Amino acid sequence: MRLVRFGVDDSPARFGVLDGSDKIRVLAEPFDTASATGEVLDLADVRLRAPVLPTTKIIGVGRNYAAHAAELGNELPDRPLLFLKPASAIQDPGAPIVLPAFSADTQHEAELAVVIGRRGKDVTTARATEMILGYTVANDVTARDIQRRDVQFTRGKGFDTSCPLGPWIETDLPPGDLRVRALVDGEQRQDGHTGQMIFGVPELIADISAAFTLLPGDVILTGTPAGVGPLAAGQTVTVEVEGIGVLTNPVVDDPARPKPSS
Amino acid sequence: MRLVRFGVDDSPARFGVLDGSDKIRVLAEPFDTASATGEVLDLADVRLRAPVLPTTKIIGVGRNYAAHAAELGNELPDRPLLFLKPASAIQDPGAPIVLPAFSADTQHEAELAVVIGRRGKDVTTARATEMILGYTVANDVTARDIQRRDVQFTRGKGFDTSCPLGPWIETDLPPGDLRVRALVDGEQRQDGHTGQMIFGVPELIADISAAFTLLPGDVILTGTPAGVGPLAAGQTVTVEVEGIGVLTNPVVDDPARPKPSS
Repeated sequence: MRLVRFGVDDSPARFGVLDGSDKIRVLAEPFDTASATGEVLDLADVRLRAPVLPTTKIIGVGRNYAAHAAELGNELPDRPLLFLKPASAIQDPGAPIVLPAFSADTQHEAELAVVIGRRGKDVTTARATEMILGYTVANDVTARDIQRRDVQFTRGKGFDTSCPLGPWIETDLPPGDLRVRALVDGEQRQDGHTGQMIFGVPELIADISAAFTLLPGDVILTGTPAGVGPLAAGQTVTVEVEGIGVLTNPVVDDPARPKPSS
Repeated sequence: MRLVRFGVDDSPARFGVLDGSDKIRVLAEPFDTASATGEVLDLADVRLRAPVLPTTKIIGVGRNYAAHAAELGNELPDRPLLFLKPASAIQDPGAPIVLPAFSADTQHEAELAVVIGRRGKDVTTARATEMILGYTVANDVTARDIQRRDVQFTRGKGFDTSCPLGPWIETDLPPGDLRVRALVDGEQRQDGHTGQMIFGVPELIADISAAFTLLPGDVILTGTPAGVGPLAAGQTVTVEVEGIGVLTNPVVDDPARPKPSS
């Protein structure tokens, strides 16, 4: 099943279930299929939004693919390297990634995202999958120069539009070994498989929930495979996760960025 | 004016305005004094809750008092050192700080907290105070050993109950030079003034809003003065900010913590 969040023009977002390839059954409550209103809309008449806003937290995982850690010259972590993005970082499918004025090297990171469906603390790996509502596609957009300068990932990974999510939440998916790709203007830049993750989804849920109560709507970004690279204004970046779908965003410059002198 | 969030027993939290020292005028909408319902309750009959939940983000500032940076052996930052706490870290006044099982050195950090009242991005220092709804008291509880081990502050500063907030939001307060103290079982441990902050509140709002859109209900933790130290189960920790009030929380052990062998 594919759960969507959508709006018509700039109306407040609503929730629904994708019915086939072109219809949306509208829900009264987020993710609650028992709350179907009976209203059915054409997918072509709506704009899909990031499927999980509001959210209470977005937890990212760094260096979770060995080849990506190596390309940045980092050692492998002996436990999940966790960071947080604020909800204000979320961006809709198709909406622009705004390159922050304070960075000269903002990069794409293609990722599988886990959407939490229930409240839980100290969850075991054996019971971790019970916590999962479904999966979506994320671009963990990172101002690499700022991430390195600041040490804390807060600014470099948390700025506005640094977390495109979508196009929907796929609830029926085994996450074991899905292909994860990023393409810039159609040219492949990242190509990995979730089976290459150092810490798998159950291990991440167990580790994270040892410190943080997980809540419905929380999102876990599971890390990115090798091949990250810079984005430039005017490009279009696509992240694709096998079995879920495609997340595409144009890239634009922050209007506050100083113009190079001519 | 003092804005409160409160509940009766375990009922869902509501919002109100403190009327004198012992009455609450109930509001229909958070922080919206024009939405007064006419209902008045006795303060003694309710339990005050953290004044800003839900919140969309909590932004912390590290090393913002020189003497505190020095006591931890850290250099002074040349820009605000930012981190995030998730909303799941918020704890109510009077409710327990649970020492996480994964830490052997969890410490108090007394802080002035700024509550944002309106949406803003790229706010100048000159206009920063327009963004402020008011101020409250925070304890930026920190698992010091885990903060150091992980490098990223996520686990060490973001675990459940690591962000007691309250007792209310004071809307009429010049934050220029307020005394900030922490007491453990009545014994003073921290004693500073907000005038000692390296980056003042307007500078913090300008810097933070250059990366993150600020939203109503967002909280900025402005950093802690010198004197941080460990907490032990059975203690009571009080944070006091001049002109706002007193935030008191008992300290308990995580039931998941392994017991020392006898």
